Amino acid sequence: MDVQQLVDTIRRKSSFLCVGLDPDPARMPAHLGKGPEAVLRFNRAIIEATADLAVAYKPNVAFYEAMGPEGWAVLSETMAAIPDGCLRIADAKRGDIGNTATRYAQAAFEQWGADAVTVAPYMGRDSVEPFLDFDGKWAILLAATSNPGAEDFEFHGAEQGAPLWRRVFEVSRGYRGAERLMYVVGATRPSLLADCRAAAPDRFLLVPGVGAQGGSLEAVCDAGWAEELAGGLLVNVGRSLLYASAGEDFAEAARKEALTIQHSMALALASSR
Amino acid sequence: MDVQQLVDTIRRKSSFLCVGLDPDPARMPAHLGKGPEAVLRFNRAIIEATADLAVAYKPNVAFYEAMGPEGWAVLSETMAAIPDGCLRIADAKRGDIGNTATRYAQAAFEQWGADAVTVAPYMGRDSVEPFLDFDGKWAILLAATSNPGAEDFEFHGAEQGAPLWRRVFEVSRGYRGAERLMYVVGATRPSLLADCRAAAPDRFLLVPGVGAQGGSLEAVCDAGWAEELAGGLLVNVGRSLLYASAGEDFAEAARKEALTIQHSMALALASSR
Repeated sequence: MDVQQLVDTIRRKSSFLCVGLDPDPARMPAHLGKGPEAVLRFNRAIIEATADLAVAYKPNVAFYEAMGPEGWAVLSETMAAIPDGCLRIADAKRGDIGNTATRYAQAAFEQWGADAVTVAPYMGRDSVEPFLDFDGKWAILLAATSNPGAEDFEFHGAEQGAPLWRRVFEVSRGYRGAERLMYVVGATRPSLLADCRAAAPDRFLLVPGVGAQGGSLEAVCDAGWAEELAGGLLVNVGRSLLYASAGEDFAEAARKEALTIQHSMALALASSR
Repeated sequence: MDVQQLVDTIRRKSSFLCVGLDPDPARMPAHLGKGPEAVLRFNRAIIEATADLAVAYKPNVAFYEAMGPEGWAVLSETMAAIPDGCLRIADAKRGDIGNTATRYAQAAFEQWGADAVTVAPYMGRDSVEPFLDFDGKWAILLAATSNPGAEDFEFHGAEQGAPLWRRVFEVSRGYRGAERLMYVVGATRPSLLADCRAAAPDRFLLVPGVGAQGGSLEAVCDAGWAEELAGGLLVNVGRSLLYASAGEDFAEAARKEALTIQHSMALALASSR
């Protein structure tokens, strides 16, 4: 999927919803059974219930990895259940160099079937470019996250007006294949999101933190909108959608939650910003 | 394994060799066959041939992940083949927050059987502490690596005398469980290694880059030695040992290479620095 296809999908679906698939085996509705099979049934039902409302799905790889070897099959089958035309994001936050990075990319793109993978930028260029060497695939770099620990390093240099997160934007623009870079920016600090948008006016931002984590969709749109990219935002919603109901109606409840969010997104897309 | 046990092991074996297990399926000796089974046979033979000479083994998780679901069994069985008393390091460079980090830790420590896991510090405290919450387990933080891309971010702030890598040492000292932190520092720039040692006089440093990547063991010892920790170094050697021979004698050739390195290490340990 290239950037124009993503923009077209957003306009066609009137949505920039990314559904975060972080399925906690302990929170699966009882009627689905137990173990990895229950997680796969859960994911398939969530995807089926939201496929017309979402433009991307983001399995959190840790949740599958922690299941042991069966988890990898669940991850691949979850990716396969995501319809063509939706971006499949492996939220893996990998970060190693050279031929090791190439192997992580092979795992994500070839073994799991992802279109994009989240990458930690700490080690620099040779830890990022191997992901971009895969034709039509994306790397989504951690930039300014909204967890408490983000202050430890992401803002290093801020006192001199040069926070690390800004350097990530600046330096990575020069990477080979940079046109297929996106960036992770947290939702809960709109002024920071606006600064990130200024640093990357022509890039998609993957924005977690709306919903259960307290970010507001309206504030995200106000701060992060890039009109030429149909907003240029992929807003991730996870727990508040996955666990909208703990009962047999979990997929309906997830759809209802997704519809509410998509309705707000449609309004944002309709109003010229 | 606690720090005193590691120091005792180093003194007893007169070695601080870490064997990097980055097995490239394309480079397996022909007589081992093909596929994941060949890799497992290879790893077991390397471990058996070097177990008395090494204090740690470091499987590079990407190499197993890229094999697909069978790779995870190879990784777990490789870990199981590493004798008790050697540190089992999962070189995974994971980095995510909160309950996601806990799941990565569960995968490494409970599924794979690792004693330690390499962690990327970008997201800060809440991406590191979950690994340290596992009793007796270690997190090994990326600090100053020696790849070309390291300049991009690891040295951010250096012009103001405050490179990011130094902040990683300073800030992480305050993390919960910091006594079970080690740090990754590249071998190829001895003056940088000396600076890292000064920043962490009482911590083990995991040092890749000796051998095929051009670092010198003697320079590493001169720059990075911490006497109270029997050097405080785990020097990783990978390709130059794994691929010392491409033939049926690969394990013997690996042992010969390990013996040469261990001999130099024994000399370093014998001479008071």
